[in-house]
Amino acid sequence: MCAPAGFLASGVACGIKGESKLDLALVCSDTPAGVAGVFTTNEIKAAPVLLTAERAAAGVARAVIVNSGNANCMTGDQGVEDALAMAVAAEKALNIPEGQALVASTGPIGNYLPMDSVSRGIAQAAAELSSGGNSDAAKAIMTTDTYPKELAVEMELDGITVRMGAMAKGSGMIHPNLATMISVITTDMPVPPDALQSYLKRACEWSFNRISVDGDESTNDTVLMLANGAAFPEGHQMTQAQEDLFFRSLCWLTGNLAMSLVKDGEGSSKLLRIVVNGARDDIEATAVARAIGNSNLVKCAFYGSMPNWGRVAAAAGSAGVPLDPSKMDIFLGEHRVASLGQPSEYDSHALEMILKRDEVEITVELGIGKGSAYFLTSDLTTEYVEINAFEKS
Amino acid sequence: MCAPAGFLASGVACGIKGESKLDLALVCSDTPAGVAGVFTTNEIKAAPVLLTAERAAAGVARAVIVNSGNANCMTGDQGVEDALAMAVAAEKALNIPEGQALVASTGPIGNYLPMDSVSRGIAQAAAELSSGGNSDAAKAIMTTDTYPKELAVEMELDGITVRMGAMAKGSGMIHPNLATMISVITTDMPVPPDALQSYLKRACEWSFNRISVDGDESTNDTVLMLANGAAFPEGHQMTQAQEDLFFRSLCWLTGNLAMSLVKDGEGSSKLLRIVVNGARDDIEATAVARAIGNSNLVKCAFYGSMPNWGRVAAAAGSAGVPLDPSKMDIFLGEHRVASLGQPSEYDSHALEMILKRDEVEITVELGIGKGSAYFLTSDLTTEYVEINAFEKS
Repeated sequence: MCAPAGFLASGVACGIKGESKLDLALVCSDTPAGVAGVFTTNEIKAAPVLLTAERAAAGVARAVIVNSGNANCMTGDQGVEDALAMAVAAEKALNIPEGQALVASTGPIGNYLPMDSVSRGIAQAAAELSSGGNSDAAKAIMTTDTYPKELAVEMELDGITVRMGAMAKGSGMIHPNLATMISVITTDMPVPPDALQSYLKRACEWSFNRISVDGDESTNDTVLMLANGAAFPEGHQMTQAQEDLFFRSLCWLTGNLAMSLVKDGEGSSKLLRIVVNGARDDIEATAVARAIGNSNLVKCAFYGSMPNWGRVAAAAGSAGVPLDPSKMDIFLGEHRVASLGQPSEYDSHALEMILKRDEVEITVELGIGKGSAYFLTSDLTTEYVEINAFEKS
Repeated sequence: MCAPAGFLASGVACGIKGESKLDLALVCSDTPAGVAGVFTTNEIKAAPVLLTAERAAAGVARAVIVNSGNANCMTGDQGVEDALAMAVAAEKALNIPEGQALVASTGPIGNYLPMDSVSRGIAQAAAELSSGGNSDAAKAIMTTDTYPKELAVEMELDGITVRMGAMAKGSGMIHPNLATMISVITTDMPVPPDALQSYLKRACEWSFNRISVDGDESTNDTVLMLANGAAFPEGHQMTQAQEDLFFRSLCWLTGNLAMSLVKDGEGSSKLLRIVVNGARDDIEATAVARAIGNSNLVKCAFYGSMPNWGRVAAAAGSAGVPLDPSKMDIFLGEHRVASLGQPSEYDSHALEMILKRDEVEITVELGIGKGSAYFLTSDLTTEYVEINAFEKS
């Protein structure tokens, strides 16, 4: 996040998680930045989501404060006060105008925040801001993630170097309905808030909205993007070609972050890449791809490296989309396992090798139109169940 | 199934499953019976579902043949021929009119039936029909079920004894969208086919449509009911009071069968009974109850006996139904764990005892209307994953 000019970050341990684990991240732009946000569609929204959605709509922000270890959700009026107090503490510590600090929280639902610790943590995080603080920040937002997710990209726009940086956290309660996790993206490109919102929403649609770990939609999903324009002189207007390259870079960034979230999905042993072609349109293709990607039986089969393509067919058929099984082909890797609705001959030894890889592609050709979609998911493992049955997360 | 007058059954091992396991069941009425059927809504329907739905619509049947170990699904024209050949073989062996044998199949998808074995099995099953054959039949339709499911009920209707009997199998790919499994129900009550279809559909709505194991909807779901009228003289017309008692008995039967399917859900360690009250209407209450019952995170939490009610709130909020968290109460057993959208004080030792029971009730009071619903599900365990990752089922 500190790759673009004018951004600093830090990550501190304020005691929410205990055991001196990093649990509070701060990202700050030297100058006011345009802001865009995409949030959970869950009806139960955490207090910081309500506050930050309102503030992001105003279009300008300077800082984002994120805590892990507590979602500040189902915490009533107290939770709303606490989210606001976090923002105010950040504004005071950074000496920035009221309303320009955004807040996100992640962790278990239904606990009040330890505000004394959080306030001390915010002051410390402000004091420790640095251009190398991004990796501590990325660690501080982790919950059941096994590694921090950071990514940056550099563009050359007519001789000027522009950068984009990001951090993200997964790794359970991942389901495609808006953001599905917490991510903060920074750039020194000058992008007006309305355009930034449109770019971010479209980039999320093709990345974070195409992944699933467990089909559970979180109460705290938040993707925020700050654009401070520091790479250009003030008042610079982007050309269409510059905007296009910017959007492609943003899609690359969010797409790769999304993939890293799935790869680190709770208990995941492999990445499943689902491709659906030949649907009547892209929307129906997407519905079929999601139904396959959210099927527990499909996810278990691939955990066991079993070529149980019948479960893929059954999941496809449950998507609520009209299908014709007699036109359906199914491929695992490059091996066709079903052809026109019937079992195909295949080299079971070669297929076994493919199923044991850490990435497996499942392709369904519906044969009834030209619609296509893809979807990424992880397998469902005994470790997923153990994490979610026995660990406090 | 042999409790009502005029029904015989048998179960044989014809070799589909190998290891001389029972895998073919036959149920037969001495006389033509009214028939009703409820089938999967999956777009990928197995060949026997297509055949049997067409035949059941004609309203009269004498026999039902069910095999386990092979779903005869995604088997193209060959599968359609095989399903028809099974029916024809049963009709010949039983010497009944063409079109009066119904077929159902359950097991892995995407394999052709071994028709030589199946044909021999049908002849053997016809020869072995008896009034005590119901328990072999119930065993012969099992897949990953750990015990056979049979149930019978007796009614006194104005001095005449009327009976109803049933068998059912689960226990994975259980999801509420019509039948969700295979069940055959018999009665010696005289019920015209149209009325029987209406009663069966309503009874399914309140039983098999209210359960879930893994959220996966099968390609082969079939519930069939045969009513031969043998308890009454021919031409008897039921009174409204008799019909009402009949319907209540049918609901009791299907409700208890549904519960036994969930209790024997793959890898299940406990039954979760979800009650939602205070929704704007029953339909929205049902959507919320289903969202909770289908949440992997909720199901894992209860496997681990964790009072993680935040996951219940998050699942409720993802149902696509407008909710107000500040009016929501959540109870685990009789303990209120959340009140008006905030955490409640509760006796954690007493709650721990409740969470360790083999049946746990989760009640969500939405506080915004008078709609109610219930839903039954099992927990999600490491054993579920092991069964579906490593066992051929």
